[in-house]
Order: sequence, then structure tokens, then C-alpha cells
Amino acid sequence: MATYKIQGWGYEEESLTADENRDLEAFWGPHLGVDGFEATPFVTLDEIDLRAPRVTPPASLAALCTDDRRERVVHTYGCSFRDNVRAFARDFSNPPDWVAYPKTEDDVRALLDWCAGAGIAAVPYGGGTSVVDGANMPAGERAGAVSIDLQHLDRVLEVDTTSRAARIQGGAKGPALEAELKPHGLSLRHYMQSFALSTFGGWIATRSSGHFATVYTHIDDMIESIRTVTPAGVMESRRLPGSGAGPSPDRLVMGSEGTLGIITEAWTRLHARPVHRASASVRFADFYKAAEAIRAVAQAGLYPANCRLIDGNETRMSGASPEGESLMVLTFESAHHAVDHWLDLALECCADLGGIAEREGDEETRRGGQAGRWRDYFIRAPYYREFFTARGILNETFETAITWDRFPDFHATVMTEAAAAIREVTGMDGFLSCRFTHAYPDGPAPYFTWRTLGRKDALIEQYDAIKAATAETVNRLGGTVTHHHAVGRLHRPWYDKQRPDLFAAAYRGAKRDLDPQGIMNPGVLVDVE
Amino acid sequence: MATYKIQGWGYEEESLTADENRDLEAFWGPHLGVDGFEATPFVTLDEIDLRAPRVTPPASLAALCTDDRRERVVHTYGCSFRDNVRAFARDFSNPPDWVAYPKTEDDVRALLDWCAGAGIAAVPYGGGTSVVDGANMPAGERAGAVSIDLQHLDRVLEVDTTSRAARIQGGAKGPALEAELKPHGLSLRHYMQSFALSTFGGWIATRSSGHFATVYTHIDDMIESIRTVTPAGVMESRRLPGSGAGPSPDRLVMGSEGTLGIITEAWTRLHARPVHRASASVRFADFYKAAEAIRAVAQAGLYPANCRLIDGNETRMSGASPEGESLMVLTFESAHHAVDHWLDLALECCADLGGIAEREGDEETRRGGQAGRWRDYFIRAPYYREFFTARGILNETFETAITWDRFPDFHATVMTEAAAAIREVTGMDGFLSCRFTHAYPDGPAPYFTWRTLGRKDALIEQYDAIKAATAETVNRLGGTVTHHHAVGRLHRPWYDKQRPDLFAAAYRGAKRDLDPQGIMNPGVLVDVE
Repeated sequence: MATYKIQGWGYEEESLTADENRDLEAFWGPHLGVDGFEATPFVTLDEIDLRAPRVTPPASLAALCTDDRRERVVHTYGCSFRDNVRAFARDFSNPPDWVAYPKTEDDVRALLDWCAGAGIAAVPYGGGTSVVDGANMPAGERAGAVSIDLQHLDRVLEVDTTSRAARIQGGAKGPALEAELKPHGLSLRHYMQSFALSTFGGWIATRSSGHFATVYTHIDDMIESIRTVTPAGVMESRRLPGSGAGPSPDRLVMGSEGTLGIITEAWTRLHARPVHRASASVRFADFYKAAEAIRAVAQAGLYPANCRLIDGNETRMSGASPEGESLMVLTFESAHHAVDHWLDLALECCADLGGIAEREGDEETRRGGQAGRWRDYFIRAPYYREFFTARGILNETFETAITWDRFPDFHATVMTEAAAAIREVTGMDGFLSCRFTHAYPDGPAPYFTWRTLGRKDALIEQYDAIKAATAETVNRLGGTVTHHHAVGRLHRPWYDKQRPDLFAAAYRGAKRDLDPQGIMNPGVLVDVE
Repeated sequence: MATYKIQGWGYEEESLTADENRDLEAFWGPHLGVDGFEATPFVTLDEIDLRAPRVTPPASLAALCTDDRRERVVHTYGCSFRDNVRAFARDFSNPPDWVAYPKTEDDVRALLDWCAGAGIAAVPYGGGTSVVDGANMPAGERAGAVSIDLQHLDRVLEVDTTSRAARIQGGAKGPALEAELKPHGLSLRHYMQSFALSTFGGWIATRSSGHFATVYTHIDDMIESIRTVTPAGVMESRRLPGSGAGPSPDRLVMGSEGTLGIITEAWTRLHARPVHRASASVRFADFYKAAEAIRAVAQAGLYPANCRLIDGNETRMSGASPEGESLMVLTFESAHHAVDHWLDLALECCADLGGIAEREGDEETRRGGQAGRWRDYFIRAPYYREFFTARGILNETFETAITWDRFPDFHATVMTEAAAAIREVTGMDGFLSCRFTHAYPDGPAPYFTWRTLGRKDALIEQYDAIKAATAETVNRLGGTVTHHHAVGRLHRPWYDKQRPDLFAAAYRGAKRDLDPQGIMNPGVLVDVE
């Protein structure tokens, strides 16, 4: 099994190349007014002061648990900006006491029994890709904290080709589960930036959204049933294509972010692997016209597989459009029928709003086209964080959703207020862009990216000030604090304002019964005493 | 406002005609071996013994509440078979003490405050169409029970034509809300058999499913946000096109069947009114081949608006196919583009499996065709219950959902065991049929209908025995106890087996915080002490 880096995104052998670093410096130096960056070196293991474990697992669990120094360091942080800064600062002051690797569901039960009995925080760990401090150890005094890494629960257990569904373990990562499904001609096709690292159970726990821009977007809509190990026992829903029998048990677990238990397996719907494909990129001089075109396509009932919008700031920066046009990426796919007619109809919607389409030909053309250049950037983007942070560049993305009627004002205000916050905190104009990751008939999911030069000795304070400003704006204007990044500990202050107080009360009520000792991922979503 | 009948489906002026009664007798007499039915007369108001109200509302609520005899009788029962039998038996022994008609949300809050303070059961009443004893007064000793009829909260409060959404009050009935949406070119298009009577809030509370056979089927997927008055206060979620911020608050309320509070309003997505339409009926000699064709269409990603299957027993009985062929009703609709190509592709799926298609022409042809004959039957069917019950004919439908891999065995076993139960209880072969009301990519929602001659002095006992047998079979084979009829009090024994025990614990935990006195629709979904 590949080894995670002790800091940053991905595995040991996977970082930015020297060429990439050079190109990024050449681009961002002039942009941020920096002549020659000084990069803080990556942390090395021997630089880290690590607190001794506060607890010792019982003998029966010793074989599942490790207090290996490197393992504890790797499991201290996810991939949030604050995680990244702390790692560069050699601050690993709140590591897990132990890292546990359950091999079976019984192992998970035994681990939770231990934690519940001893008042130890149990923090589920999927791929360690949380950008919202969702898999960190909780702050504050407590008996101990264990990071439960589910990477050995990684199997596709059953494939039902008739119903197009599979039973998959919670720790299965994207590439592995797709490899197991491929011989059956099936695919979950739930692709997001963290696809290579993040896990099926993590997707469910955080309500992730994937490849599809419309209809079957959120993992929520793909799930037939979930099996969750809670401190109170196993909760398993019935596998069904649809039901109206009371509130959905699955919808309580979806988005629970490890606060109720650990998802050991679930049945998910699958797609037949597409064999027909039609794709185009559509350029718009005006961003709001492009947004109107996205709305028209989303409301036409055509259900494109991909329907994204990238604004001029982002296309210019990524090289997709040096002129800074807005770019729509539009794709139809099917395992059943040719989809050119669908693309024709969608492009009519775009033409009505001034969009200039470049229809893509074969795979070769696609990879080389504007959309292809943007896609390459998309896949490498998570690695950029370590480049930026090492050089004192504040960098973050935040994603939301809003209905169409409010979108133009919402977008304009978020852009204005985010830019103002960046200027106020750093004294300079930062980079700021917006894309749509998903488009619903009733509204888009806008995704904002910002970067600006910070002060290396105050990165977290500066970041927190800008983050608070943008989250306050989004909250005030009626957006959601997160569309698919999850709440974690980062978004708690605004999540607490957004979700109904009585829902928090009800959720705490439910949690009292499933997790009576309050050991599951403390600090995420709700506080319990 | 039209006046409900004191017994049976719908309004006073809407019953079966003398011609319909005669035709039904002519059909069912020979079928059930009865030569001349004796019909129990409908109950009249003066025949009913009604317990005196056990409580008195405070003066501040007196104007909202009535103990009018007729009102209390009307609100004693919904439209289940057991309701119908009890009404024919002149048994109104558990009526509401009062019927309340809140005119505003503040009225709803005040009513729940009264009930919570006095330990009075509060039972929300939408259109009174529950077929699962969901709006009856709870059994057992208690201080009192109030039926809260939401018919005055019937407004469309706001229409957002840009996002295609509307904010609608919980008591709005289908025809009225559609009439308000029509001038905007929009429609909820959530049509079910009870459409004329049932309410928007009731649809949400029971997770109803409507017109669409695929994709946007369940009301669940249409809702942007919900406002619920609970005994603990108002819970309102944020209006969003999509979100990943923790578990969905709305999904806790959907399916709560009045046990957490009263839905006073919600934002719902809408559809543009369709202008393009293509429809066909497809005949199959073999039911399982027809089911395969439904699966092929559901998995092709074509998203028909209607994709139903009616078995030979039902087509023969309804007159849609005297030869008893299985009939698929297939419709594509769009506000945006012609849909003939979609129908062509779907009919190819059907032809591959031996289906013989009759493509429908204009509206005239449609109404007269096989599918049209079946649709007329579908709309009148709820009125048949009073015909049957009055003549001692046991009659019921039960609906479920199951994945495709299990469907053929499931169907065969349910048909065999239901037939056996009917024979065992009544000593005769009954009528038994199956249709699909909805088709998901991973499985159908089969809907079974049965009718057989019972003994007028033992209808409920006979019914309960057959109901228990069919529900046990469905439960044992992995189906859901209800796809869209709801749980109510009727389905409790099997719902309790189906839903995870820990979910019941969690739900009770949530309910403790929202409804601390346990006054909301007691006996539905969970028991609380």
C-alpha cells in the first residue's frame, strides 16, 4: 500500500515536480509582486515533538493499534489550509494517541467499545482529505483520542448487475472500487478532486458530490442502504430502490461526519459505463450571460453529465482562455444511446445567450482543448496548496449553493466583500475567481477560489479573518456554508447559524441514543456535554 | 368550500353514480359468486353515538375550535379499509373531542401550546385521505384529542419563476395550488390518486410520490426547505437548491407523519408546464418480459414522465385489455423540446423484449386508447371502496418497492402467498393483481390490489388476517412496508421490523426534544413514554 506524505496532499511519490514549482513561481511572483519566493521546507519526522500517548489500548486491541511516530503524525492533520500551515510550522501538538487499523467490522465495534468505556474520542479517518478539519483530534482536555483509519475495509463485497448496484465497504477508495466494478461494466462515477484518496464511507459521511453536474450528483441520491457501527451497536437500513416508510434512516447518517458512528458498508446504485459521449466548451464574453445559459440547460430537462462554468479570472489563470472569457464545459454521456441530439439542444440554449461553442471531437481533441487544459489544472490543483503555503501565500476555496433568483446579487456581493476582506487583511488585491461545480434546476453551486500574499508569521490569523468574512457574507445572503466540502470544525460557527436550532436539538437527541458517551468525532456538527 | 362526506372518499356530491354501481355489481357478482348484492346503507349523522368532548379549549382558542357533531364525525376517520368498515358499522367510538381550524401559523402554535400543556393528542388533518389510519385519534386513555384541520392554510405565498419554485402553505390541496401556479406557466405536477383532496403538507409528511415514474418522483426530491411548527417551537430550514451541510433537516421532517409537528409551509421546486408530449401503450403477452422492458427503459437514462406497468389481471378487470395482456403506459413530456426521439428509444427497448406498441396521437386518441381507459379507472378507483365495503367485499391495495434482482421471485411469492391467505381466510379465490406505479433504475415499486368476498360480521378480522399475511410476506422478502401510502397506525407492526431499532431510538431521541410531551400524532411511527 502506498505511503501517505506526512504533510500535504497524497502519497509520498506524488508532489509537484520541479518544473511545476518553477512555472507556478513564474506565474504567481509577478501576480503577487514577489521577486523570488522563499519556500519553507517540508517538515521532516525528526523535527516533530510528539506528546506521549495518554492511553494504552487493551491487549485484545493491541494488534490493531499503533503508536508509531510517523503514523501518528500522518493522522494528525487533513488537508485544510490551517492543517497545512501548522504542519509547516512543525506544530503537531494535538496528535492522535493511537492510530487504529480495523480489519473487520468486529474490530470497529471493539474499538468503539474501548473508546466509549474509557471516554476516548474516536475520530474516523478515510483518506485524510478533509479540507474542513473534519478528521483532526478534538481540542480540549480529554482522556485520549484515536484516529480510526478504515483503509483495510476496502472491498467491493457484492455486485448486482441486474439492479446495477454494489455493496461496498466504507474504506474503499475511488480507484480501487472502480477497478473492481469495471469488469462488470459498471461504475459509481462519483469523481471529485479527492477521488484518488478519499473513501466511499467518507463520501457518504460528508454528503460529497461528484462528477455529475445534474440529477445524480450528491452521493445521497445513489445510496440504497447504509450499515453503521455506532457506540450503541450496528444500525443497518434495508436495501431498497425507494421507500416512503417514515423518515429515511440513511439521511440521518449522510452528513453525520463521523458524529454518530462509522459507516462500515453501504449499497450504492451504479451506472453502466458510458460508451456514447458528446462534449463542447462554450465561451461567453459575459459571466452572467453564461450563468443564464447554465440555468437554461439545467431547466431544460436534458440532464448533462457535466455542466460547469468557469469565470474569466480562472480561465485566464489556468490558461484555458488567455482572454479571460467565461467557459462552460458541457458533456453528455450514455451507455444506451448516442447523445449528440442532447448536446445540440443544450447548445441551442447557449447560442440564444451569446455562447460560442467549440464542439469536441475524439478523445485526443478533448484532452487538448480548452476544457482539457482546465481539467488538467483541476486534477493537479490540490497539490498547489503546499506550493502556496510554503511561500506564505494564503489560499483557499469555498463552495456554496444559492437559488437562481438570488444568484447575480449573491455573486456580485460575495466577490466584492471577499475582495475587500482580502485587501483589508493583507493590504493587497488578491486573486479571486468563481466557477460552478454543479447546476440544479433551481440554482447553481458556485465555488470561489482566492489567493493572496500573507505574512508567514500570521498566516492562520490572516486566513481566519478572511474566512470569517467570506463565510459571514455567504451566510447573510442565504447561501449554504458548504455544498460538498462538509462542515467539520472549520465551518461550525456558520453552520450553527444556518441550521435550525431545533434541528440541532433533535440531532443531539438522536446522538444521545447512538453515542451516549459523546465519543464520536467530538466538536464536529454539534457539541454535547 | 365543498363539504366532505361523513363517510368514504371525497365531497358530498361526489360518489359513484347509480350506473357505476350497477356496472360494478354486474362485474363483481359473477366474479365473486354473488347473485344480488345487499348494500349496507351509508351512515347518517343521527345514527351516530358520539362521546361528549373530554376537554374544553381555552377561551382564546374557542373561535378556532368546533365540537360540531358533523365535524367531529368527518374527522374521526380517514379512508382506510378499517375506517370504512367502522363507519358502515356506525362505530364512531373514538372521535376527536374538538376539530380545530387554524387560520394562521400563530393559531397552530397556540393550538399546540394548549395540547402540550393539557396532555391532549394533536393529530394533523390534511385531506383526510390516509389509507393507513394516519389521521385517526390515538387509541387508549388520554386527556383528549384534537384533529387539526389545515384547510385554511391553503395559499401559494410566493412564486419564484426564475428558479422555478414556490413557497406554499401546508394545507393547500392539489387543484388549488396548481390553479395558482398555472398563470406563471409552472406546475408541481405531483399527481396521485388523492390529488383532489390531499394537501401539500400531507405529501411532505408522508413522503408521497406523484405523477413522475422516474427521477423527480418522491416529493422528497422537490423540496427546498420546510417550516414546521413543533411543540418546542418553529423549525425552519434554509431554502437551498442543494447543500452538504450536515444531515438534511428536511429529511427528518419528510415522513414524520405528524409526529414531530405541523408543516405550515415549504418551498418546493416546480416544473415548467409541458408543451411537448409523446406517449404509447405497449402490450406484452408475458408480465416478466414487460417488467424487463420497464427495467431497460428505467436504466437507459431516458427519464420518462410516466412509465407504468399493469398486469393482465388488472387490464382484464379494468377493461383496458380483455385478453389480459400486460400493458405498459409510457409517456415523455417536456416544456423545452420535442420528445418523440425519447419515445422512439424507449420503444426500441420494449420491442427488444417482445412489446407491441400503440403510439398515441392527439389528446382525443389518448383518452380513448387502452391507456386512457385505464386512467379513467385509476381516477374513479378510490370511490370503489365504499361500493365494495358496503357489499361485504374485502378490498385493499398494498404497495412496496424491491430491487430488480429480487423482483421476479418477490412477485411470484407475494402473489402465491397473498392468494393463499385470501383462500384461507375467505374460502374462495379472490381477485389479485399487480401494477408498477414507479420504476427506478435499481428496482420497481409494485402495487398489489386484492378483493374477495368477506363476511359482513367479521370484515375487520378477515381483513387483518389477510393484511398481516401480505405484510409479513413483503417484510420477509425484503420489500418496504410502504412505498408511498405511509406507515400510519396500520403498518406499525411491520415498520417496526423494517426500520433499524437504533433508528427508532434515535428518532425517539429527536422527538423528545421537539415534542417533549409526546402529543404529536401518538401511535404513529414510534411509541413514546
